[in-house]
Amino acid sequence: MAKNNLLKQVYADSLSLLTDLYELTMAYAYWKNGLEDRHGVFQLFFRKHPFEGAYALCAGTAVALEYIENFHFEEEDLSYLEGLKLFEPAFLDYLRGMKMELNVHAMEEGTPVFPYEPMMRVEGPIIQAQILESALLNIINFQTLIATKASRVCFAADGDHIVEFGLRRAQGIDGAIAASRGAFIGGCHSTSNVLAGKLFGIPVMGTHAHSWVMTFDDEKESFRAFAKALPKNCIFLIDTYETLKGVERAIEVAKEDNLKMRAVRLDSGDLNKLSIQVRKMLDEAGFTETKIMATNELTEQIIWDLKHQGAKITLWGVGTNLVTGKGQSALDGVYKLSAVQDANRNWLYRLKISEQVIKTTNPGISQVRRFFDEKGYVADMLYDERMGPGETIIHHTDPGSQKQVESNWQSQDLLVPMLKEGKRVYEVPPLEKMRARSYEELAKFDPSMRRFLNPQWYFAGIEQGLYKKKLKMIEEIQRK
Amino acid sequence: MAKNNLLKQVYADSLSLLTDLYELTMAYAYWKNGLEDRHGVFQLFFRKHPFEGAYALCAGTAVALEYIENFHFEEEDLSYLEGLKLFEPAFLDYLRGMKMELNVHAMEEGTPVFPYEPMMRVEGPIIQAQILESALLNIINFQTLIATKASRVCFAADGDHIVEFGLRRAQGIDGAIAASRGAFIGGCHSTSNVLAGKLFGIPVMGTHAHSWVMTFDDEKESFRAFAKALPKNCIFLIDTYETLKGVERAIEVAKEDNLKMRAVRLDSGDLNKLSIQVRKMLDEAGFTETKIMATNELTEQIIWDLKHQGAKITLWGVGTNLVTGKGQSALDGVYKLSAVQDANRNWLYRLKISEQVIKTTNPGISQVRRFFDEKGYVADMLYDERMGPGETIIHHTDPGSQKQVESNWQSQDLLVPMLKEGKRVYEVPPLEKMRARSYEELAKFDPSMRRFLNPQWYFAGIEQGLYKKKLKMIEEIQRK
Repeated sequence: MAKNNLLKQVYADSLSLLTDLYELTMAYAYWKNGLEDRHGVFQLFFRKHPFEGAYALCAGTAVALEYIENFHFEEEDLSYLEGLKLFEPAFLDYLRGMKMELNVHAMEEGTPVFPYEPMMRVEGPIIQAQILESALLNIINFQTLIATKASRVCFAADGDHIVEFGLRRAQGIDGAIAASRGAFIGGCHSTSNVLAGKLFGIPVMGTHAHSWVMTFDDEKESFRAFAKALPKNCIFLIDTYETLKGVERAIEVAKEDNLKMRAVRLDSGDLNKLSIQVRKMLDEAGFTETKIMATNELTEQIIWDLKHQGAKITLWGVGTNLVTGKGQSALDGVYKLSAVQDANRNWLYRLKISEQVIKTTNPGISQVRRFFDEKGYVADMLYDERMGPGETIIHHTDPGSQKQVESNWQSQDLLVPMLKEGKRVYEVPPLEKMRARSYEELAKFDPSMRRFLNPQWYFAGIEQGLYKKKLKMIEEIQRK
Repeated sequence: MAKNNLLKQVYADSLSLLTDLYELTMAYAYWKNGLEDRHGVFQLFFRKHPFEGAYALCAGTAVALEYIENFHFEEEDLSYLEGLKLFEPAFLDYLRGMKMELNVHAMEEGTPVFPYEPMMRVEGPIIQAQILESALLNIINFQTLIATKASRVCFAADGDHIVEFGLRRAQGIDGAIAASRGAFIGGCHSTSNVLAGKLFGIPVMGTHAHSWVMTFDDEKESFRAFAKALPKNCIFLIDTYETLKGVERAIEVAKEDNLKMRAVRLDSGDLNKLSIQVRKMLDEAGFTETKIMATNELTEQIIWDLKHQGAKITLWGVGTNLVTGKGQSALDGVYKLSAVQDANRNWLYRLKISEQVIKTTNPGISQVRRFFDEKGYVADMLYDERMGPGETIIHHTDPGSQKQVESNWQSQDLLVPMLKEGKRVYEVPPLEKMRARSYEELAKFDPSMRRFLNPQWYFAGIEQGLYKKKLKMIEEIQRK
């Protein structure tokens, strides 16, 4: 089993049918119309900052890459499709022989990203690029959502250790596994999910449940029995009956058995008040190194609030609200056609009109350039690879607002080549590196961008020449 | 590959580590304290009606059953655990030899269920029952959430066909696959997710995307090309440029090419107004059999509202808000210890105290009895298997409210034996049967229970004798 093939470690062989039926009917229609060699460009982006924030953290692109690389139809998939009685046998043969020949550019995981900026750009036979739509969106939308949520939770906790433990209420099995991955990229320190630990190398952490205490006739006896097994890893859950009694008993056991007690955990009640009382009791008993851990439906806002009330908590367990993206359960990512080739391989730009210009998609073959000066990032420009970057950036949603590229700015292009004609040209870094990137990159933005209430928006826009082309295209479509 | 082994079809072999670390550290602590043969009972239930409704639909229990049946540690799992340096080698040997010997009772999928009623009851060695906690909760919480959401969407649509198409924004790969399964049990008619179609036999359905239209120079040309491939399955998406122009072009193509046109699809704009205009145009052109399909961030409330405005839509595509449980992204299911045996195999009842009596867990070995008369269901009673059912039911959250079992009531117990000492004693019905059950069972409740605003609560409570025992236990714990 290849260690770097994460999807195959978790899933059975066959994920090519992880697609919406219409991707296959469209593929069939392209094929049937003799258009199987027609090339196009699709761009994957979102429109709305998640969680009423002002940024997202890109995640999932390396998993999506792996999906593309491993894409193939198994015989059992083809038999299933045959049974649908929608497709000619010759088309199923075509699928049997299909090999992905796509050029894929994508953002590295852990990169801050803004609305309208493609996180992935897929070029090549439209029939191939189209068939991937549903799976790429599924993978990238969710991991980006959770990485973003995690970075908010970590920002609130201001350097404290965050353990993600959402498995039990996550949205399905991979809703947990993929969330653990995304949460770690976004900044979490550990997970309770052992399978995620095994698959991704994320540090695992755990305490014990109320049921442990309840199995015994008495709380103290239960702590002692737990310490007997894990003397170096004692985190006692102290609220099974009454928190302040619980911490007293934990202290007694720790003294009698000469334990270090890594932490005590609060799971109910007024976390602020209790943590202050518990801290005092621990300190007076000499357990100044024992941490206080808190759990119980935590969100970034609750953590932020507790920190500012002076709660004595330095270890946070965040579950449901992190792994299900409390407040916004899905990123609104889309995958839009932006260019097609005609029969002579000339590029024709395409856009999807909407009532509002700002909701109309961007045509062309986009790249995202991020500018910085000595203090940090100053602006992003979406430009067209063939038209090249210009000097003027028009704000994506407020076209009256513009910026000129200044002479002291440096820049970096964010869409990195990852597949060239289906072959890998990018080495996926270890997860720990992606996590480090998210910390490093976010630090280069103005911190007001990370505020929960009224965050300041970073300047992200479109290159003026491309913007003008887009307006002209809209006019032409409307004239028709 | 066993056709009835769904988890293995989707996942690689090894799911035993799909657990929180604390389940394993507790298992280790039980083992280390010589308690590996001590028996207990765990009960899986939720506390809050999802979506501010008045019921949930149980789903996922058969998948959870399969998880238990297939539970075993692979060598690679044990090596990973060894590497954590938390456990003695002898414990890993113990895990290697672990065979599930549990007795499992559960509700059949598609059964309406209310707060505090166990959907699953697991009896046997505590060490085994405990280790399953995280996975059972993950599987049952999510599928129950989505089956419930789907039944609400179907109620709003009042018999219209609902296609679930949430794959692209679902929470991870299994967030999509498990949601398709739950949504079908809850009443949906089809899915766009081809893999869910293959795995579960759910009918699949699809249309085409805007990108199809945009590939061509002209909308009409794109419709004609699509019809060439799928003449019997034409559902044209008509809003790529301008909906009313789109339907005109669809009608022209259908007339010229002599197509039946299964449906036209609206994906933006005022769905009510547009559907009325489009219906008129279709009817006038003779396409009275062509359906109007609507999509675009639909919820049960929007569908309900559109139906009551007189929208001419009879085919609904519901995605993101269905598969991510819009409004409540997780069911608050828990898995609580309710009884343990002492060293002499006598049962000791257990409960977890909370500030409020109503949040305190129910002790014992529960069964759920559902009473009915000739008009339908009248009340549920949670009773203890050893104490037996009594005559008086105390409401779960409003103890002042009581019901006497009446002489003309009949009843049925909802927790069905599924595993006996680890062996299957229950035949999982086909998914179509579970779906039929959800329709049949829900029809036996007062329809006011299904209202979205101020739904009427069904009477669900606890048998009086068990309630008294619970109060006495609370008193005793508080005295200590």
